[in-house]
Amino acid sequence: MKKVLALLLSAVLVPLCAQKDETETIKSIYTHALTQQQGYAWLKKLTDIGGRLAGSAEANQAVQEFQKVCDSLGFTTFLQEVTVPHWVRGPKETAYYTLNGKRYEVAICALGGSVATPEKGLQAEVVEITSFEQLEAMTDELEGKIAFYNIPMNPAFINTFYAYGSAVKQRYVGALEASKKGAIGVVARSLSSSINPYPHTGSMTYADAERQIPACAISTRHAEQLSKELEKNPTLSFHFKMAPEYRDSVTSYNLVAEWKGSEKPDEVIVIGGHVDSWDLGTGAHDDGAGCIHSLEAVWLLQQLNLMPKRTVRVVFFMNEEFGLNGAKEYARLSKKDKVNHVIAIESDAGGFSPRGISMVAPEDLKERIRGLRHYLEPYGLHEFSENGSGADISQLKTDKLVMIGLRPDSHRYFEVHHSSQDVLARVNARELEMGSATLAALIYLLDKNDIVAP
Amino acid sequence: MKKVLALLLSAVLVPLCAQKDETETIKSIYTHALTQQQGYAWLKKLTDIGGRLAGSAEANQAVQEFQKVCDSLGFTTFLQEVTVPHWVRGPKETAYYTLNGKRYEVAICALGGSVATPEKGLQAEVVEITSFEQLEAMTDELEGKIAFYNIPMNPAFINTFYAYGSAVKQRYVGALEASKKGAIGVVARSLSSSINPYPHTGSMTYADAERQIPACAISTRHAEQLSKELEKNPTLSFHFKMAPEYRDSVTSYNLVAEWKGSEKPDEVIVIGGHVDSWDLGTGAHDDGAGCIHSLEAVWLLQQLNLMPKRTVRVVFFMNEEFGLNGAKEYARLSKKDKVNHVIAIESDAGGFSPRGISMVAPEDLKERIRGLRHYLEPYGLHEFSENGSGADISQLKTDKLVMIGLRPDSHRYFEVHHSSQDVLARVNARELEMGSATLAALIYLLDKNDIVAP
Repeated sequence: MKKVLALLLSAVLVPLCAQKDETETIKSIYTHALTQQQGYAWLKKLTDIGGRLAGSAEANQAVQEFQKVCDSLGFTTFLQEVTVPHWVRGPKETAYYTLNGKRYEVAICALGGSVATPEKGLQAEVVEITSFEQLEAMTDELEGKIAFYNIPMNPAFINTFYAYGSAVKQRYVGALEASKKGAIGVVARSLSSSINPYPHTGSMTYADAERQIPACAISTRHAEQLSKELEKNPTLSFHFKMAPEYRDSVTSYNLVAEWKGSEKPDEVIVIGGHVDSWDLGTGAHDDGAGCIHSLEAVWLLQQLNLMPKRTVRVVFFMNEEFGLNGAKEYARLSKKDKVNHVIAIESDAGGFSPRGISMVAPEDLKERIRGLRHYLEPYGLHEFSENGSGADISQLKTDKLVMIGLRPDSHRYFEVHHSSQDVLARVNARELEMGSATLAALIYLLDKNDIVAP
Repeated sequence: MKKVLALLLSAVLVPLCAQKDETETIKSIYTHALTQQQGYAWLKKLTDIGGRLAGSAEANQAVQEFQKVCDSLGFTTFLQEVTVPHWVRGPKETAYYTLNGKRYEVAICALGGSVATPEKGLQAEVVEITSFEQLEAMTDELEGKIAFYNIPMNPAFINTFYAYGSAVKQRYVGALEASKKGAIGVVARSLSSSINPYPHTGSMTYADAERQIPACAISTRHAEQLSKELEKNPTLSFHFKMAPEYRDSVTSYNLVAEWKGSEKPDEVIVIGGHVDSWDLGTGAHDDGAGCIHSLEAVWLLQQLNLMPKRTVRVVFFMNEEFGLNGAKEYARLSKKDKVNHVIAIESDAGGFSPRGISMVAPEDLKERIRGLRHYLEPYGLHEFSENGSGADISQLKTDKLVMIGLRPDSHRYFEVHHSSQDVLARVNARELEMGSATLAALIYLLDKNDIVAP
């Protein structure tokens, strides 16, 4: 009877004690992050390099400098060669419209991948397009004109990523579709969640277009202004000038920093963000924050002697913005080298106050991850959703892989996204650190509780 | 049997339909707030007036201008006279320390209620104090010296209000306690969650001090710098100069805007924030956001034809920062006029992304409020805590009253709180609107479901 009682007691007490220990451990991770703010210092170092468009010297400089950081921390580091396109914006773009002989300057920027305008600029009448249904119904209205897409992000979405998703078409295929209708240029409303004077760039495609027409983004403030003027003066003339160009492709790199697992070295937990960014700002949120979250998460575990049983890899992926080349190459090499990824984590939604995670994983493992919620709720993590993980790690997808994306509060993201405003001053140190600590806690809990497919 | 079935079905279907209706209604509230952004426009109007220190012309101007706004919306409005102290900062404060004949300027501001320094300033050696235990143990070390409190907010707290609470003593009673030990002046570290060059003011008390010594706040950046210098040069001399003064008390006002209830006009739901602010910024978060949240919440219900069965009162309380005079007078008049408050709601924690609410209420009602959680979780409201409500409405406390405080994300609050940085540019329109919509949804749900004490 005594023996049975002892067994019973241990069955109850051991998990209770373990739970208490884990609660304390999670707390120590957040305390260390918020007290040391090492991530914020690293993000300063990264953004001080400047914008890191794939193919630029800055992108490669970032890889090199952070390889040194990882080396100094005792990681095994290596670089993976990645060939990336090298598109260059050229001199600052200019644009204006003319009314009664007076020029009104507006703020634009070339979309990523756009061709240049003629050297003296492109001038034509403007046709405003407020939906793709309207565009489809057009016959010759765009012939010889500039297509002005003016489709705002829908502010009613609580998660602004859905608003972005519903409006991004004008940027991505706006030129392709307008060229089929005879347009000679495209001005697309910036994908910004507020009215502001900063144009927001981003990728576009010409796909199989017969004519490649120049495409720029106009700030939301000037889009509103232009739209108002067009109501009164439908034949007003718009002029824009930009000289971007593709140069020869460039050899660039993924940075991989590895820490061998003590008990299960052949099982790999990969965590990463993308080190490239757009060139208008310094990619502080997109995706400097994600790279630093990933590095700092593992650093926190290292500092607190909590390194996982499994091997951990921090990856700074190259060129998410302009073709996912780094992620594809990482996936190809992993397959070739038979790397057994069991968990993949990505942060690519900004350095804001974390709200939750999204998961792609076998059903039973998702259920077990939801079971960890009580550890993270005290830190503001409540949303455990099933809306994907991240673009870079999605290249690794298998039926067994546990894939997780960090989900910070999204209200402020599209105010700065892909614009000159995506700089360190827009990142709050505490919010950034909360993200790093959350990812560290996640790695710790998933590894300790063996939440991986058999 | 048919009748029984019909009854059974109606018992199941009616609540289900009601729930669906309510879900749609809540959604319409958030959509209207995020789409119209009326609150942000009002916050601009309010902050354009300037800082609104109690007793200032700006504080009274704000009351008058928003009375007009409320009148134009069809509310019955009235003002309640409140006598408030009138402390005036005077010319910009200056401070420096001297090392090897060189002056090092540091940023300070007078604490609210401080006396002036002598006209030429106050100069003395500095003694650094890093805890109240250290102060208590002192004998004559402070005699004729300036006490330099340097107690940082503890960054490990997830909710920064706790960090504030644990460090605020140096500001509030720093001068009182140091004067007992012979100090002739006080320099207190700003209550800021980051290292920055902006001093943060706030209230202080002399209580029954025999000597009233001048007290200022020093920016966290300069507090760190001064501390470092003191290690090397313990006898360095510090100089500060400020000329604040109390003038005659002033007649000011609470603004009350009322909408009579359609079914239960004698039961009152009061919602408010404080219209006064500190003078260094324009009180955008503290507590412009709370006033606008309150007004906009009721405006949203009005716009969507959802006005409660009960009477609703929006109150802009006067002088929370400097003595709670407005709240006390509102409570006194309510008692005198036998106003039957059943629900009181306050927003005074900034215009950031809402995270939850805190409640003070009878146990059974708290349980019913928690039962509403599923309506608000889709909008990011997860934390239903029991940590108080708000300073202004706390004056109305009874055993029966349902008291609720809005709890926005707190990570950024103490970066701007009581400093020159508390301005409109630090408020994100979407985050502000989420707060207003949340309060509107709360009023709607509490009223519709009769979550009030009998």
